[in-house]
Amino acid sequence: MPAFFLLRLLQLQSMVSFMLRYYTSGESHGETLVAFLSGMPAGLGIDQAFIDRELWRRQQGFGRGGRMRIEKDTAHIVSGVRQGQTIGSPIAILLENRDWKNWQESLPVEPGDPEKHKRVASPRPGHADLAGVLKYNFPEARFVLERASARESTSRVAVGAIAKLFLRDLGIEVLSHVIAVGNARLENTEVGWEALQQLHAKDEVLLNCADPATEERMKAEVDQALRTGDSVGGVFEVVAHNVPPGLGTYAQWDERLDGMLAQAVMSLQAVKAVEIGT
Amino acid sequence: MPAFFLLRLLQLQSMVSFMLRYYTSGESHGETLVAFLSGMPAGLGIDQAFIDRELWRRQQGFGRGGRMRIEKDTAHIVSGVRQGQTIGSPIAILLENRDWKNWQESLPVEPGDPEKHKRVASPRPGHADLAGVLKYNFPEARFVLERASARESTSRVAVGAIAKLFLRDLGIEVLSHVIAVGNARLENTEVGWEALQQLHAKDEVLLNCADPATEERMKAEVDQALRTGDSVGGVFEVVAHNVPPGLGTYAQWDERLDGMLAQAVMSLQAVKAVEIGT
Amino acid sequence: MPAFFLLRLLQLQSMVSFMLRYYTSGESHGETLVAFLSGMPAGLGIDQAFIDRELWRRQQGFGRGGRMRIEKDTAHIVSGVRQGQTIGSPIAILLENRDWKNWQESLPVEPGDPEKHKRVASPRPGHADLAGVLKYNFPEARFVLERASARESTSRVAVGAIAKLFLRDLGIEVLSHVIAVGNARLENTEVGWEALQQLHAKDEVLLNCADPATEERMKAEVDQALRTGDSVGGVFEVVAHNVPPGLGTYAQWDERLDGMLAQAVMSLQAVKAVEIGT
Amino acid sequence: MPAFFLLRLLQLQSMVSFMLRYYTSGESHGETLVAFLSGMPAGLGIDQAFIDRELWRRQQGFGRGGRMRIEKDTAHIVSGVRQGQTIGSPIAILLENRDWKNWQESLPVEPGDPEKHKRVASPRPGHADLAGVLKYNFPEARFVLERASARESTSRVAVGAIAKLFLRDLGIEVLSHVIAVGNARLENTEVGWEALQQLHAKDEVLLNCADPATEERMKAEVDQALRTGDSVGGVFEVVAHNVPPGLGTYAQWDERLDGMLAQAVMSLQAVKAVEIGT
Repeated sequence: MPAFFLLRLLQLQSMVSFMLRYYTSGESHGETLVAFLSGMPAGLGIDQAFIDRELWRRQQGFGRGGRMRIEKDTAHIVSGVRQGQTIGSPIAILLENRDWKNWQESLPVEPGDPEKHKRVASPRPGHADLAGVLKYNFPEARFVLERASARESTSRVAVGAIAKLFLRDLGIEVLSHVIAVGNARLENTEVGWEALQQLHAKDEVLLNCADPATEERMKAEVDQALRTGDSVGGVFEVVAHNVPPGLGTYAQWDERLDGMLAQAVMSLQAVKAVEIGT
Repeated sequence: MPAFFLLRLLQLQSMVSFMLRYYTSGESHGETLVAFLSGMPAGLGIDQAFIDRELWRRQQGFGRGGRMRIEKDTAHIVSGVRQGQTIGSPIAILLENRDWKNWQESLPVEPGDPEKHKRVASPRPGHADLAGVLKYNFPEARFVLERASARESTSRVAVGAIAKLFLRDLGIEVLSHVIAVGNARLENTEVGWEALQQLHAKDEVLLNCADPATEERMKAEVDQALRTGDSVGGVFEVVAHNVPPGLGTYAQWDERLDGMLAQAVMSLQAVKAVEIGT
Repeated sequence: MPAFFLLRLLQLQSMVSFMLRYYTSGESHGETLVAFLSGMPAGLGIDQAFIDRELWRRQQGFGRGGRMRIEKDTAHIVSGVRQGQTIGSPIAILLENRDWKNWQESLPVEPGDPEKHKRVASPRPGHADLAGVLKYNFPEARFVLERASARESTSRVAVGAIAKLFLRDLGIEVLSHVIAVGNARLENTEVGWEALQQLHAKDEVLLNCADPATEERMKAEVDQALRTGDSVGGVFEVVAHNVPPGLGTYAQWDERLDGMLAQAVMSLQAVKAVEIGT
Repeated sequence: MPAFFLLRLLQLQSMVSFMLRYYTSGESHGETLVAFLSGMPAGLGIDQAFIDRELWRRQQGFGRGGRMRIEKDTAHIVSGVRQGQTIGSPIAILLENRDWKNWQESLPVEPGDPEKHKRVASPRPGHADLAGVLKYNFPEARFVLERASARESTSRVAVGAIAKLFLRDLGIEVLSHVIAVGNARLENTEVGWEALQQLHAKDEVLLNCADPATEERMKAEVDQALRTGDSVGGVFEVVAHNVPPGLGTYAQWDERLDGMLAQAVMSLQAVKAVEIGT
C-alpha cells in the first residue's frame, strides 16, 4: 500500500475516533472504586505486577495516615483485557476498599438505618465540603467527603499505569520526584534521568526525593506539621522522557497539549498550581 | 431571589456541566459487565426493584436462547448511591455474568492456557466479526463476539432504568411495544397509553405485543424461523409520555433531540432503522 | 522505523486528538452563514470548483421556492486553507446571504427599529416553531424560523464537500439519489455505481432520480402538492463507495459508525427516518 | 409549578445540553479571524461598545509591536445576535485583519504564485514552530506561525467579552492585573476590588499594574529587554468577584472547575504556569 494512502487511511480512522477517555467512580468508604478506560488499542500486553506496584507506590510515603495501612490496593481488571492483552474494548478496573466491611452499615447503597449514618457536621476548610453541601443540598458533608477524597486518585493511578505500559512500547517513560516539602527544597533541581529511575526502583518510598539529605530535611518538615496538627505543602516534578514532537496541536485551544496536561494535573485533589517547562 | 437572577444562575451552572454521560464495558462471558453513569443529580430515590424488573423484562421473550435462562440479572450498584438515594457522584453498576465460572479458563484476564481458548473461526455474516478482526488485527473473532454482543444492552437497561426513575419525578414515562415480527404486523398501531401500561405490568413477557391475536401470529413467525435455523426481523415502537417541549435545540446539529435519539437507538446491536414521529 | 513502533506512534497521536468536528452558525436571512471545520489534516488540496458545484447542486431541484433563485452560494473560505491546501488549522467558510440587504433593517444585529421586525405570529405545524418559542421565551417565532431553517444545510454541504475531497484521496466516493417522492417510487432500487456517477455529472438537477420515467412521475407528485398548497415526502439513498472496513467500533455505544451516521442524517431539517444497510 | 418539579425540569434540560462551547479559527495574516460561541442563552443584551473596549484593551500595553498599531479590532457579529440580543443560536464573530491587503498575494486561499510566499526558514525557539513543521510536514514554519500566534487570543477576548456580559447579570465580574514583569514585582499583591475597577476604567493601558511606582519599574524592565532584543516574562492575576459556590463539581475529574480554568489559561499562547487560590 503506498505510504500516502496509508497515511490518509490512518487519518480517516482517527477522524471518527474519540480521544482516549477515562472516568472514575466510587466513594472513599464504599464497596469499590471503579476506573474506566475507553479507547486503548488492542494488543497491548498488560503487566499486572507493574500496575500493582504503581498502586503500592501511591500508598507509600512518610507521615501517611492509618488508612494507607488498611488498604493494600490491587487492580482487579474485569473487562477489556483477555489472556494478558487488551482487546480494544473498554477496560474496567475494580479497586476494592478493604475498609468497606466497617462502613456497610453507615454507608449502605440501599436505605439503611439513619441512626448509623456518620455525619461530618463541620465542613473542613480548604476542601470541597461547603461548596458540595450547597450544590447538592446535603444536610451535612459526609457524601461530599466520600467523593471529594484523595482516595479517588487510586483509580487514576490504575488507568495511568496502563497508559504507561502503552507508552513503554514507544520508549516513553514518565517519572516524578519531589522537589520541595515546606521549606525543605532540593537545591539542584536538575536531577538526571538515571537518578530518577533509581529512585523509582527503590523498595522503600518515603518522600520520593532524589537527594537523601534533602529528604531528611523534608521528613523534619512533615514531623513538625504532624506535631502541630497542621499539614504542609510541597512541589513535585513530572518528567516525560523521550516524548516525540507533535503531540497535541496549536490548531485549537482545547487541543493544546499544555492545556490538557494542566487540566489533568490541576484536577487532582490538593494540587493548586501547575507549571510547564523549565 | 428574583426569578431572573435564579434563571441566570441555573444557566451558568449548566454552562460548566457536561451532559448526562453513560458508558458501558464488559464482555459477554467475562466476570461482569460494568455500567457507568455520570451527571445524575443528587437526591433521586433509587428503586432497586424497578431496576431489577427492567433487567428481568429484558431477559424475557419468546424463542430466546438458553443464555437467558442461565443469567438472571440484578443491578449491583457500587457507587453513586447511598442510603437509597443518588449523591451526585458517578454511578457504577456491576452486572455479573453467572456463566463466568464456565469461561474463566478460556477467557482469563491474565495470560492463560492458549489451548483452552475457544476460537470463533468463521466470522458470522451480518455481525461486526469481520470488520472487528480486521480492525483490531485478531487471528479469529472470539474477542469481537465477546464485546459486539447483545449482552451489552444489559448495561444500557440498567442505566436506562435509573434515567426512567428520574423522569418519573416529572411525570414522564417511556414505554415500548412490538408492532411487527416478520410478516405478523399489528393492524391498528395506535395503541393507547393505558394499554401500554397494562402490557408493561404483565408478569409474562413473550413478544410484548399489545394485541394477543397478533402476538400469536408473531409467535408463529418466530417458531417458523427457529425451525429453519433462521432469524426474523421486527419493529418496535417507543412512546415517551408527557415530555415537555424544548428539550434539545435546533441551534446546533449535535444538539437536536431527534439526532441524539436516533444515535442512541441505532447504536443498539441489531437495530437497522429509526423513525421519529408518526 | 519499525512498523510496530510507527503504529504505536500513530495510535498515540490519535489518543490526544479530537475527532473531526464541525459546527454551523448563521440565520436564514442574516448577513452570512459560517461553517466551521476543525481537525482536517494538513496538505489536502482544496478544489473550490468542487465545493461550489456541491453548493449549486443543493440549490437545484424541481419545485424549489423563490429563495433558491435569489441565493447563488459560493464558499468563501477565510481560514485553514492557504495556497490551495489545508494547513491543519480550523477551516472557516462564509456563505453569504445575498438576500441580507433586504433584511438588514428588520433583522439587525444591533438594536434597531422594532416596527421593522417581521413577526411570525402563527407557529408552523411540524416545525420547531412552538418548541423554540417556549424554550427561548420569544414572543413569536421569527428567531426560531431564522435558525431552524433548511438554509442551515448550506453550511453542511460546504464542510461535507471538503470531507469528500479528503475521502477522494482514498478512492471513497459518497453519492446519493432519490428513490421515492410521494407515491412515485423507483421500482428497481439497485442503481449501479456508474449510473449514480452519471446522475451526479448532469448539468440539470431536478429530482435526482436515476430513472427518467420515475422522475417524471415524481415531478407530477410535486406539481400536485404545489397545486394543493401541500408538501410531499420522499426517500433518498446515500451510497458510500469503497469504504474500508473498521471505521468506528463496536467497543462503545457512541463510537459505533451506524449511530454516528444516524445522528448526522437525522439532525438534518425534515429528515424523519434513517435506515442503514439493504 | 412546584419548586421540586421545576428543579427536575431544569436538571432534565441540562442533561441534554452541551456545555458552553467556543472555538476559534483564522490565521494571523489571513482575511479574518472567526470566533464561534455555542450555547449562550437567548435574551442576553449584547453591548457592542463593551466588546470593542475589551478588544481595545487587548491591543494596548507598553512595548507592543507595530502590529498593534496596524490592527484596530472590532467585533463584527454575523450570527446569533439580533436586535441587540442573543437568540440562542450560535454566535459567530468576524475579527478582520486590516493587514490582509498586504498579505493577499503571499498567503492566498487559492493556489497563488509560490514566489510570493514568505518563508520562515528558521524555527523560533520557545515557539511551536519546530513541532508544527514536523507534525504537519511543512517545508518551513510560515503556516505554523500563522496559527500559533498571539493574534489568536483576539477571538478569545471577543467570546470572553460576551461571557462577561452574561456574568454581569449575576453580579459576577472578572478583572485582572499584572503583578510582576521581570524583576519588577508588586510588593503588596492584595489589591482591592475598587482599585482593580479603577485600573480597568483607565483610558491608557500600559502594563496594567495597580501601583504606578511598580509600573514604572516594570516599564524599565521592558525597555531593558527591548534594548537587548530579548523578551521578559511576567505574572498576572485574574480575580473573579462574587462567584457563587458550586460551579463545577468534584464528581468527575473533567468537571472540576480548577482543572477547566487551568486548561483555559494554559492554552493561551505564552502562558507557562497557572496557580489557583491564594
